Amino acid sequence: MTTIAERPTAPADLGGLIAQHRDGCALEAPFYVSHEVFDADIRGVFARCWIFVATEAEIREPGDYVTLDIGPYSVIVTRNREGQVRALHNVCRHRGSRVLTDPSGSVGNIVCGYHQWTYDADGKLLHAGTQAPGFNPNCFGLKQIHARSVAGLVFICLAEEPPADFDDMAERVAPYIEPHGLEHTKVAAQEDLIETGNWKLVMENNRECYHCENGHPELICTFFPTYGYTLEEIPERLLPAHARYLRADAELQRACQEREMPFAEIEELSGRVSGFRIQREPLDGAGESYTRDGTSACRKLLADFDTPRLGRMSLHHQPNSWFHLLADHAVTFTVLPLAPDRTLVRTTWLVHEDAVEGVDYDVATLTDVWHQTNAQDGTFVGRAQAGVSSPAYEPGPYAPNEYQVAAFVTWYLERMTEALPQ
Amino acid sequence: MTTIAERPTAPADLGGLIAQHRDGCALEAPFYVSHEVFDADIRGVFARCWIFVATEAEIREPGDYVTLDIGPYSVIVTRNREGQVRALHNVCRHRGSRVLTDPSGSVGNIVCGYHQWTYDADGKLLHAGTQAPGFNPNCFGLKQIHARSVAGLVFICLAEEPPADFDDMAERVAPYIEPHGLEHTKVAAQEDLIETGNWKLVMENNRECYHCENGHPELICTFFPTYGYTLEEIPERLLPAHARYLRADAELQRACQEREMPFAEIEELSGRVSGFRIQREPLDGAGESYTRDGTSACRKLLADFDTPRLGRMSLHHQPNSWFHLLADHAVTFTVLPLAPDRTLVRTTWLVHEDAVEGVDYDVATLTDVWHQTNAQDGTFVGRAQAGVSSPAYEPGPYAPNEYQVAAFVTWYLERMTEALPQ
Amino acid sequence: MTTIAERPTAPADLGGLIAQHRDGCALEAPFYVSHEVFDADIRGVFARCWIFVATEAEIREPGDYVTLDIGPYSVIVTRNREGQVRALHNVCRHRGSRVLTDPSGSVGNIVCGYHQWTYDADGKLLHAGTQAPGFNPNCFGLKQIHARSVAGLVFICLAEEPPADFDDMAERVAPYIEPHGLEHTKVAAQEDLIETGNWKLVMENNRECYHCENGHPELICTFFPTYGYTLEEIPERLLPAHARYLRADAELQRACQEREMPFAEIEELSGRVSGFRIQREPLDGAGESYTRDGTSACRKLLADFDTPRLGRMSLHHQPNSWFHLLADHAVTFTVLPLAPDRTLVRTTWLVHEDAVEGVDYDVATLTDVWHQTNAQDGTFVGRAQAGVSSPAYEPGPYAPNEYQVAAFVTWYLERMTEALPQ
Repeated sequence: MTTIAERPTAPADLGGLIAQHRDGCALEAPFYVSHEVFDADIRGVFARCWIFVATEAEIREPGDYVTLDIGPYSVIVTRNREGQVRALHNVCRHRGSRVLTDPSGSVGNIVCGYHQWTYDADGKLLHAGTQAPGFNPNCFGLKQIHARSVAGLVFICLAEEPPADFDDMAERVAPYIEPHGLEHTKVAAQEDLIETGNWKLVMENNRECYHCENGHPELICTFFPTYGYTLEEIPERLLPAHARYLRADAELQRACQEREMPFAEIEELSGRVSGFRIQREPLDGAGESYTRDGTSACRKLLADFDTPRLGRMSLHHQPNSWFHLLADHAVTFTVLPLAPDRTLVRTTWLVHEDAVEGVDYDVATLTDVWHQTNAQDGTFVGRAQAGVSSPAYEPGPYAPNEYQVAAFVTWYLERMTEALPQ
Repeated sequence: MTTIAERPTAPADLGGLIAQHRDGCALEAPFYVSHEVFDADIRGVFARCWIFVATEAEIREPGDYVTLDIGPYSVIVTRNREGQVRALHNVCRHRGSRVLTDPSGSVGNIVCGYHQWTYDADGKLLHAGTQAPGFNPNCFGLKQIHARSVAGLVFICLAEEPPADFDDMAERVAPYIEPHGLEHTKVAAQEDLIETGNWKLVMENNRECYHCENGHPELICTFFPTYGYTLEEIPERLLPAHARYLRADAELQRACQEREMPFAEIEELSGRVSGFRIQREPLDGAGESYTRDGTSACRKLLADFDTPRLGRMSLHHQPNSWFHLLADHAVTFTVLPLAPDRTLVRTTWLVHEDAVEGVDYDVATLTDVWHQTNAQDGTFVGRAQAGVSSPAYEPGPYAPNEYQVAAFVTWYLERMTEALPQ
Repeated sequence: MTTIAERPTAPADLGGLIAQHRDGCALEAPFYVSHEVFDADIRGVFARCWIFVATEAEIREPGDYVTLDIGPYSVIVTRNREGQVRALHNVCRHRGSRVLTDPSGSVGNIVCGYHQWTYDADGKLLHAGTQAPGFNPNCFGLKQIHARSVAGLVFICLAEEPPADFDDMAERVAPYIEPHGLEHTKVAAQEDLIETGNWKLVMENNRECYHCENGHPELICTFFPTYGYTLEEIPERLLPAHARYLRADAELQRACQEREMPFAEIEELSGRVSGFRIQREPLDGAGESYTRDGTSACRKLLADFDTPRLGRMSLHHQPNSWFHLLADHAVTFTVLPLAPDRTLVRTTWLVHEDAVEGVDYDVATLTDVWHQTNAQDGTFVGRAQAGVSSPAYEPGPYAPNEYQVAAFVTWYLERMTEALPQ
């Protein structure tokens, strides 16, 4: 029998719901609207997988921290005195108070504001007022969360036993990321957007560009709208764009080869826990950056790049993040579920640590394209959530250029099946 | 076993709850506050009965549309190229997005803003980008909803098999409505009010005038406060009003007979799915319209009426609408459930299509009485919802002049009983 | 089987949850976050125990009333023509409308605004429009609630059979309260604060001063931060404060003995339904009142006190109130649950009925310390609620100076155990 004390790992009939799913079609409504499925998503996906939570640029010095919520969890990501990245549950071991209440900051020790229980950045309890005899501070450290950085991108895993295949993924993607020198970047801007839809609708929306041509006028100045199409499927009106793409891609490949930078696509979206996709692709227009004309948004380039024409190094990591690393800046996205119908999307723009605001870049230009694009996507996601809530909703078929959405759905159902009680 | 995928038709013990009801008394609290009963109401009442949703005046030209929500359903009501009224589920057959997002407008085709799936006003899928071989557009039209107009009032039915007795009702009420020429009206004003109570409290409040004398100072300038009383029950203080009523009613009957307009009451509130009540009754004061002194609110009369003194032709239709057709304007009301404790009331004022705002009528005068009356009713409904939520609430007896409320409750319990799983 | 009509007295496994609790530790998360436990708290605690709701000063004249909500209940507290305090359910016996809708006021009879059903202050139905033959008004009075005043403090009990041990408590605490002459006070200020946490977190927060030293800079000007410590546990930094406390306490005891006022601690927090604690303790600083320097906030003293140095007569009454009676004013607190994570805290400041605002006292100075302290406590409670909602929360041990919190938890679990279905 289910008890109040233990929320169920999964609704009793989640297995049946999964079994009903028709391959190649959108997910059934309960996956988007049910509170029970939402709880199952937190347990089966967000509490089991590695999750991108922050960039190292946000916690450059020992004592720097960010806090964030992952479903019902509150997490502290910080750097200890030895300079290592650490993640801790933001729950005091005394009476459960949130310990750090600001979204980010810098502290010496981590002190709970309620009764001054004091922890170090590794979570060790240093001080707890007057306690009864027999009180052992070693038993009351802040609970640990697995944390690691992949070339400057911080991932955490809430599970006791993190999925093992992350190592492999990290090893294969690091060579794509490292040339951009994220360890020498700073945060130029960060934006939180709450979309009124399920987190999976947010991810699905991101996995196709079928909607870009009409939906993202600013983005398609530089993002080729043929994304996701196979050659045979490209509509006639997009053939000129495709021709530009082929030329730009050839040039980009040469530039990468000269600089010994990897660029080939790796796509392993399903069949593994750490599903991902990585690739370097050219940009349209001037080909340099995500701006309306494609020219750089930051004069001071990342790393020691000698050219601004390096396209976009795009990484997608399941369940909840994607990244674009350019020559002049990097932009990261993390998707955090708040409720069945509410999702936080946090976007962070990084520039070279020596770039000077107002001289090398201005924030409005730097953030313009993705600020607009996110807002447009938020509208699409909100309409999708509203629509699938109707009893008349029937999942339709994915088009060929939505194959990555279908792959995400496959991956998601793999995770949920794996998490079903045996 | 109940699955997530199929929400239950009714709570397991709705039958028991219905059986507990004491005839002649108000409904028990769960009928007003329970989320399960609310879902059962949507399924057993709103997804089965004919529902008034709009006037034809709101969709005069092909391509004109309104969208509205009925519980979790989103509906498009539109006019096709042949001029016929159509209703469609507002859910894209691709990935479920809301298709039309404005409350009203005019379109050539119906285009989903997400991936540009394009439908005609009959719901037929005309265009859907590049699809896999074997994709049959004929299988992906917008889902149809039964729709019909009764002399200019548009009703829809979400059920596959609409209740048959609507035909009979339509045939009997049309002769009362037709003389007002709604096909030659336009919308002068429309007002949405969200009341903080269950939809049944809204309907019950509308079915008695016990509360009018103190509750509706503007309305009772013209609406006789003896409504619902039998002769023996009329309180002494209302006898002068009753004497005025008898004189005005005799005059009205003559006027109707001269013009061959039906006026007799038909009251079939329970014992049938399409429960209704229709009657022409006189107005107090100048006897012409719903204004503070009873004079007309629009100089240009409806149809080709030769007198403004035609009283009010009042139609009540269960579950969720009522109408007042006067000589100078018509006003329609539709009640749409949003949540157990939230209900939308939409009021629409129609005037002759040739009436000129600022010349023949002004909106403030036209809408004054029902704007005030609706607001007052909203307060009553909110207090009733708050009160019945207390564990101390015990349904009290209806007074004789609340017999129509009792009839509505009887009708409602008939519907719920009918919808119980066998 | 549970029916919709009867909400369960307790969740099916509340017994199991209670059994899991570890003595001496904070409560498990479901006690704070579960909607089922919240409902069980209302039924098992708030609908069974005596609850402090108002001071007599708020209803000085016949017809004066206050309304307040206790969970889903709405209650009228009033004074009848004979001057007796009465409590009634604020639910019309007709169709359940809230009867009185203002938070306080003064009326002749109690008239429901919906259909004018009219009751006297004892709840008797005086008038109900035209009713069917056989309608017996005596069957439709407003439902009664037990009410009584303890030396000017009004308590109600929603149960049919109130707990018997309240009499004993009332008899023992009255001699502490009576010298302050609350019957000759008036309300100088009242403040409602909605804290974003469970009502038990609000009470627990109030039962310890472990958090005062850092958390309440204004309060500890006069409230000794050694509260709750035993002599051996007092940290060294607090020894000077403790020395001041001992001197002030000796002086206070003399003052009380001279005036024949009781001051000894009585502490019976668990093992009985009407758990309470009462004591007179000295104040720090000037020792007169809750101000930043400890001097009086009202020149006109309560009763006929000849000295402002009478410390604080502090009463704590479970489940939901505490009181501080000083020489110059009194302040009362009542804690009313709104939702699992929302709680109303109402604070009322009383001064002598002859004190003149702007001459004898000003409201800002009078309310300053507890206004600040309440706001700070609200922040602590909100952080605790947020923290215990994390799946990572594990109840920690209470420190020795939190023994009253532990006692409250023991008392609460006694109540819940008692309320379990047999």
